[in-house]
Amino acid sequence: MASLKDMRFIIHDVLDTEGHLASLGVDASCDRAFIDAVLDEAFKFTDGELKPLNASGDREGCTLKDGVVTTPAGFREAYRGYIAGGWAGLVGPTEYGGQALPPTFGLMLEELICTANMAFAMYPGLSRGCMHALIAHGSEAQKQHFLTRLLTGEWTGTMCLTEPHAGSDVGLARTKAEPRADGTWSITGTKIFISAGEHDLSDNIVHLVLARTEGAPAGTRGISMFVVPKIDLDGSRNSVVCGAIEEKMGIHGNATCVLNFDAAHGYLVGEENAGMKYMFTMMNTARLGVGLQGVCLAQRGFEASSGYARERLQMRSLTGPKAPDKPADPILVHPDVRRMLMAQRAFIEGGRALCYYANQCVDILEMGADAERRQRAGELLDFLTPIVKGFLTEWGFTSVNEAVQIFGGHGFIRETGVEQYVRDSRITLIYEGTTQIQGLDLLARKVMMTQGKGLTHFIGEMQQAAAECRAELPELATTLEVIIAEWPALSMQIGAKAMANPDEVGAASVDYLFYSGYAVLATMWARMAVTARRRLAEGVDDAYFAAKIDLARYYHARIVPKMAGHKAAMLTGSDNLMQVNDAVFTAD
Amino acid sequence: MASLKDMRFIIHDVLDTEGHLASLGVDASCDRAFIDAVLDEAFKFTDGELKPLNASGDREGCTLKDGVVTTPAGFREAYRGYIAGGWAGLVGPTEYGGQALPPTFGLMLEELICTANMAFAMYPGLSRGCMHALIAHGSEAQKQHFLTRLLTGEWTGTMCLTEPHAGSDVGLARTKAEPRADGTWSITGTKIFISAGEHDLSDNIVHLVLARTEGAPAGTRGISMFVVPKIDLDGSRNSVVCGAIEEKMGIHGNATCVLNFDAAHGYLVGEENAGMKYMFTMMNTARLGVGLQGVCLAQRGFEASSGYARERLQMRSLTGPKAPDKPADPILVHPDVRRMLMAQRAFIEGGRALCYYANQCVDILEMGADAERRQRAGELLDFLTPIVKGFLTEWGFTSVNEAVQIFGGHGFIRETGVEQYVRDSRITLIYEGTTQIQGLDLLARKVMMTQGKGLTHFIGEMQQAAAECRAELPELATTLEVIIAEWPALSMQIGAKAMANPDEVGAASVDYLFYSGYAVLATMWARMAVTARRRLAEGVDDAYFAAKIDLARYYHARIVPKMAGHKAAMLTGSDNLMQVNDAVFTAD
Repeated sequence: MASLKDMRFIIHDVLDTEGHLASLGVDASCDRAFIDAVLDEAFKFTDGELKPLNASGDREGCTLKDGVVTTPAGFREAYRGYIAGGWAGLVGPTEYGGQALPPTFGLMLEELICTANMAFAMYPGLSRGCMHALIAHGSEAQKQHFLTRLLTGEWTGTMCLTEPHAGSDVGLARTKAEPRADGTWSITGTKIFISAGEHDLSDNIVHLVLARTEGAPAGTRGISMFVVPKIDLDGSRNSVVCGAIEEKMGIHGNATCVLNFDAAHGYLVGEENAGMKYMFTMMNTARLGVGLQGVCLAQRGFEASSGYARERLQMRSLTGPKAPDKPADPILVHPDVRRMLMAQRAFIEGGRALCYYANQCVDILEMGADAERRQRAGELLDFLTPIVKGFLTEWGFTSVNEAVQIFGGHGFIRETGVEQYVRDSRITLIYEGTTQIQGLDLLARKVMMTQGKGLTHFIGEMQQAAAECRAELPELATTLEVIIAEWPALSMQIGAKAMANPDEVGAASVDYLFYSGYAVLATMWARMAVTARRRLAEGVDDAYFAAKIDLARYYHARIVPKMAGHKAAMLTGSDNLMQVNDAVFTAD
Repeated sequence: MASLKDMRFIIHDVLDTEGHLASLGVDASCDRAFIDAVLDEAFKFTDGELKPLNASGDREGCTLKDGVVTTPAGFREAYRGYIAGGWAGLVGPTEYGGQALPPTFGLMLEELICTANMAFAMYPGLSRGCMHALIAHGSEAQKQHFLTRLLTGEWTGTMCLTEPHAGSDVGLARTKAEPRADGTWSITGTKIFISAGEHDLSDNIVHLVLARTEGAPAGTRGISMFVVPKIDLDGSRNSVVCGAIEEKMGIHGNATCVLNFDAAHGYLVGEENAGMKYMFTMMNTARLGVGLQGVCLAQRGFEASSGYARERLQMRSLTGPKAPDKPADPILVHPDVRRMLMAQRAFIEGGRALCYYANQCVDILEMGADAERRQRAGELLDFLTPIVKGFLTEWGFTSVNEAVQIFGGHGFIRETGVEQYVRDSRITLIYEGTTQIQGLDLLARKVMMTQGKGLTHFIGEMQQAAAECRAELPELATTLEVIIAEWPALSMQIGAKAMANPDEVGAASVDYLFYSGYAVLATMWARMAVTARRRLAEGVDDAYFAAKIDLARYYHARIVPKMAGHKAAMLTGSDNLMQVNDAVFTAD
């Protein structure tokens, strides 16, 4: 696991995090040296303690016996190390015991944890979502009791949304909340697919549960949020039990639980019927985190497959032997092996840049003093969130599959470890809102409903990037300029059609998501290339920075053309999906 | 498992198998009624006996103890049913006990077996490759002893090519063959990834082993082929033992073995040093079979996900409730769910048509009396084989992933069964030559080395299809005409660049493979649409045939545009892959 150098390239060179934080009035001690120190420490912990448990955690999985879930060997000790290192409270508010570092630090930590061990990463990951919701909407008493323990890591959290009949459609949730005489609530129902829902890493688990109070409006407007702790305020065991853990395709080290709430003791968060809004506080954070998972797994795949491509000797280069003293050339000489490696890396670094860029918006939103700047950052973040979640997970999956492909038959075998990344990453395209949900969110809510506010901001960023490329990297400027001219027009065209027929949105949305994702990463690569050129001009580490320009050119030349297919497909309209004979969908 | 109707559409309506066989002088008893009877019988066996073992076989897997491999519960009984049904000898020569039906019958059987249970299908599948090689190159004695037992199904076969250091590069094989005084050979070495290499379905296993004799030329020109039976001619146990079985991502029901040959008794097939040529007799058959696996798994995925899309209720249609009496609409109302279903089905039926079309070339090649017709069929088959293998497996994988996506979180859970298709299908992109090998085979060997012979034949077929579409399905004709004009020119353009720099081939080959695959399936869909229109004109089963035209239009409108991205990428040349800084490929 050796992405530190690439992380620093994004964090320092491309995004000037030090300057960015200074502009937000963050304490000057949060400088480059401090960032590097945190990165080094986090790397030491994650690489040393979590990475070695990734494959073994996959093999072992979690087990359930008498309601008790046992995590794979080593997870408990590793989690104790996580607490001891003070990692749980890195970005939380000081008044509840947090260290109050800017959100960007949280992302750095999250990337390193997830690259080391995605299944493990989900335990603290779920706590993060839970803390966010409590910070934003919890009462002072809830913060004092729950948040303080979440910030030490002593307790972990969950998000309990899904029910058997209510997945993407959270509004169908049936879990009931009934008032008790003492002003608290009694929660009854079944939640499924609850990640980290039960385990042996912490003494208590803080469930945030969506439920309906009596007489609540139907659908999403009648959903309330409750804290339901596994161990109640008085130290008694609350009646929430794990009824089963799922056998899954991947992320075996994480317990995915069926949770049965049987008149469990619950505490209302905020106001009744506002649960859906609160949920999005968790959800938006979670979606950025899931997009990052795509990048992290791809990073693992790239490390494995680039190493293998140098070692594995098969066949000769078509232009003549490159390792004449060996029985065959390393497969790295073959153009398509290089293409697969470059595709992985172009996605990883473009995706990483996007994650950190989006996270700068979070920094501004949470810490910025200037209202106008905060608003712009919020609009940009809203726009980018479905792209981070939808596009980076789709490409993450493609990317780990390229890694397997480079390993050939050896990639299909457990031993080499790469097939695990495919199995682990498959869920990222689904949970916290499928690619389909992200597509609808992007096109309908984030573009059409806002009259393209976030898109317009981003086009502004693209114009700046294009201008910076114009002189010395003209081919990159040209690609961006084509997109700048095309993307808003395309959005308006679909928007206009959707006025007459709402299905036009759903018929275009996933292609629109992909189109947008490619466009955003093209912009990130332009920025990276401009940065690399500047560093080269300063005479620093030639090869490393030259490689960034190669990757930018590769992305613009070989990946950007995929946009044409998505553009053409989305412009064909909805009739070829909606006005078809039902026999199309019948298997007989 | 209900693809019989769609199979009949291809076999009878589109490809007129009865007429095709009659044109080859096949006995008139091989008529439509007989084909249907064989299909029905095969369906009864595969659906009844093999399908129920698919999920359980995946869970149980194979086990190795003291050199003995045990297949999952039920596999032995099912295989006995396979023998009892006479399925093993369906297409083999009568003089060795086969039923001598045309190859197309073999494909029908293979499709049904593989759709029911891919891991099981590989046991008879490997036998098929072994039989092919023996029929073509074995001595009379070898045929009498081995082929006769393979044709009853009493024994099974394998292909022993791969060694730890020799995968795609078979020429690196080190397994040694030393002559014995009695004219037979002593085989020593280790083979890996041997599918069906050891198991409990049959008393004997006939290994076809590639090995080097002393003083043989280096590389592929020094490879010879040997029959090495598990039980030797004299009934003694030969010294070939299974050293390990691999833990794999999927196809758990099939034993993937490490085989150790320790001075095992072997019999030369044909001539020394001609093993590579013989291997391709097996390999080409196997490649067509693997392409078919892509279609079969996709069929399973479509059946599952189209059913789920009708039952699963989540959210309302954007155009208003479609099932107002229910808490939500079935997800089939959502445009992108329909898109994913249509993508699956367009691939499946296009892919199936391609498999049967390619197999008609096999029929002609094996049974045609006219030398010119045979030659054309051979050239067409050579050209289509890498497309069948490379493109149909890539799209098969995409397709089963769409099925999982429709299931959402439930798709990631073992219980629903669809994640197994993803794990099973992942190997199809790798074994019998990776997508990368298929790309090179297509562009370098099948197009450039033949001056586009097969391509030219296929363009002829496209022209005919375009002409038939022109009047009533003009939009399909137009797509085809664009490709007809573009594809040969594109091929020549890359060919010309490759003269100056051989790496141009490898840099273009996978994009060229995809481009070609899309073009071929566009042609298949045009033929299917024309056929469906004719049937509609006859007034038969409206909805079913109307749906074929919808799918053809969908494919041409929404899938064909993907070709633009591949075309653009391949035309960017090799420099963006080859003339880049080595740091691009270094993870640090």
